[in-house]
Amino acid sequence: MSDSINIALDAMGGDNAPEEIIKGAVSALETSPEIKLFLCGREDDIRAELSKYSYDVNRIEIVHATEIIGMDEPPVMAVRNKKDSSLVKCMYLVKEGKCDALVTAGSTGAFLVGGQIIVGRIKGVERPPLAPFIPTATGRALLLDCGANVDARPTQLVQFAKIGSAYVKKVCGINNPRVGIVNIGAEEEKGNALVKETFPLLKATPEINFIGSVEARDIPYGAADVVVCEAFVGNVILKMYEGVGTVLLKSIKDAFMSSGRSKIGALLAKPALKKTLKQYDTDQYGGAPLLGCNGLLVKTHGSSKAVSINNSILQCKTFIENNINDDIREMFSVSMDI
Amino acid sequence: MSDSINIALDAMGGDNAPEEIIKGAVSALETSPEIKLFLCGREDDIRAELSKYSYDVNRIEIVHATEIIGMDEPPVMAVRNKKDSSLVKCMYLVKEGKCDALVTAGSTGAFLVGGQIIVGRIKGVERPPLAPFIPTATGRALLLDCGANVDARPTQLVQFAKIGSAYVKKVCGINNPRVGIVNIGAEEEKGNALVKETFPLLKATPEINFIGSVEARDIPYGAADVVVCEAFVGNVILKMYEGVGTVLLKSIKDAFMSSGRSKIGALLAKPALKKTLKQYDTDQYGGAPLLGCNGLLVKTHGSSKAVSINNSILQCKTFIENNINDDIREMFSVSMDI
Repeated sequence: MSDSINIALDAMGGDNAPEEIIKGAVSALETSPEIKLFLCGREDDIRAELSKYSYDVNRIEIVHATEIIGMDEPPVMAVRNKKDSSLVKCMYLVKEGKCDALVTAGSTGAFLVGGQIIVGRIKGVERPPLAPFIPTATGRALLLDCGANVDARPTQLVQFAKIGSAYVKKVCGINNPRVGIVNIGAEEEKGNALVKETFPLLKATPEINFIGSVEARDIPYGAADVVVCEAFVGNVILKMYEGVGTVLLKSIKDAFMSSGRSKIGALLAKPALKKTLKQYDTDQYGGAPLLGCNGLLVKTHGSSKAVSINNSILQCKTFIENNINDDIREMFSVSMDI
Repeated sequence: MSDSINIALDAMGGDNAPEEIIKGAVSALETSPEIKLFLCGREDDIRAELSKYSYDVNRIEIVHATEIIGMDEPPVMAVRNKKDSSLVKCMYLVKEGKCDALVTAGSTGAFLVGGQIIVGRIKGVERPPLAPFIPTATGRALLLDCGANVDARPTQLVQFAKIGSAYVKKVCGINNPRVGIVNIGAEEEKGNALVKETFPLLKATPEINFIGSVEARDIPYGAADVVVCEAFVGNVILKMYEGVGTVLLKSIKDAFMSSGRSKIGALLAKPALKKTLKQYDTDQYGGAPLLGCNGLLVKTHGSSKAVSINNSILQCKTFIENNINDDIREMFSVSMDI
């Protein structure tokens, strides 16, 4: 294998495939000369899109795949039966070591199943968490698990905390990231059975900087760098972020458009507002990685446009250049020795 | 007892007590001639505040209480030991039938404990849910349970659905309110163990209009009128609403103030924005009722100002005038007969 960073890209996954996927791919090649991309999907469709751009042909390889896994297909069946799908092909490229990472905007369910059963977990990792960044008033926070493993056990939440710390340390350059557990009150005795059991375990984990409970209200303020929770709760947090933000911004936009006076006001305030709201634009962070697998697997939003595909590819580059999986491997090989 | 609607008010509870509590009380008396208020707390403090206003002295009764339960006191101990606290006095006024309802901005924990052990549940209600309204793009939705009972069982969630339906029917005038269960996907087979067990039970409950799973993202859009979930999840939803909304609006405000140009823009757009954002102001809905107790118990935000005290009192009036507890009693006496 060459010195390039090889990334598999599901050219057929998501609402805007293959157009936006290919557009994002070409743009990532332009900014990062060390990247080589493996585009998985229908060769004709991929070539047709690629013909719109000029790029270094040596840095793109097309891996033909006849099938596509739909967003609503039962994930386990889809991964098992559609061996010739673009997503499954991406998974095998990582499994076989031909690629270091993969990016898909396709089915989340199939992504999670494929990650576990095709690519596989790092030895010692019980359940790989899905770990997106969420924007905060002061920067960003890593939220994990946000949907991979419902009904997790306390020891698994402790693993999430350790994996998340290692990731944030390297990706955000925060030396001693603050780890908080999502709770319904700030006191140690508060919470449901899972949180009450997990709290003392986190306190007794020397590798992390555990700051205690974090109330959901304080997450958007930036109360912690690593926000640990069970997948159902994490998913609710992520979706509430999305839902409340979108509804509120839509209402504000409607208000701006409601009269001549407010329209002029909007026009004047637009540049300042645009700058502020960019801070809350999750596209800039790339997708959600499934951490703790043998390779980096990144899931971007189904509605991803080129910019978030581009950023997800750059996210893989950062991950690989920083050898984050080596840190995770070392972390769990040590715990295995005890 | 007279024909008036008697409501107990914890004059010492919350960050702005007693000033804002008394101000809200006097304002509620003005709009609703059928109300009589029982103000519990330190008589001197209450009289000092009341002296600022003119009001009908026959419609306010002061119930002297020497103690105050602090926000951070362990709830069970506080309710047990501080028999002469303003909150416990309110609870006994309801228990003894002297008042039909109570409103407090004090400790949530003590409120929940006092509701259960002093006022008590309606026969057949397993665990009274805390049930605030949350604003949506199309109106409002009742969220329950949002913090009273962590680790609830499926049969308890079914009770929440029934109680919530009865409440929304009368309070919002929605004939057949749509009941959704919070889930991490729209399909029936998705979810954690609790949701998977609860889903078929809700489907088999003829008294409610069950529309299936509701993703957190869709709640702010108004996807359901009654949003059922376990208390930990409900609390996270409520707090995320608060956190994301506040942080986003603060950022927008900062953006408006960032330049001369944007300041003028803000000035022009202000009336339209104010009108829109009022829709998301939870103060207008009053507080969160603990439903299923023998009397109506309402908890408003610790930082409540007069307006939300006023609206919480009016909320009690609506509840009592509509005999909602009779509906809940009937509902559960029928289920008990089976």
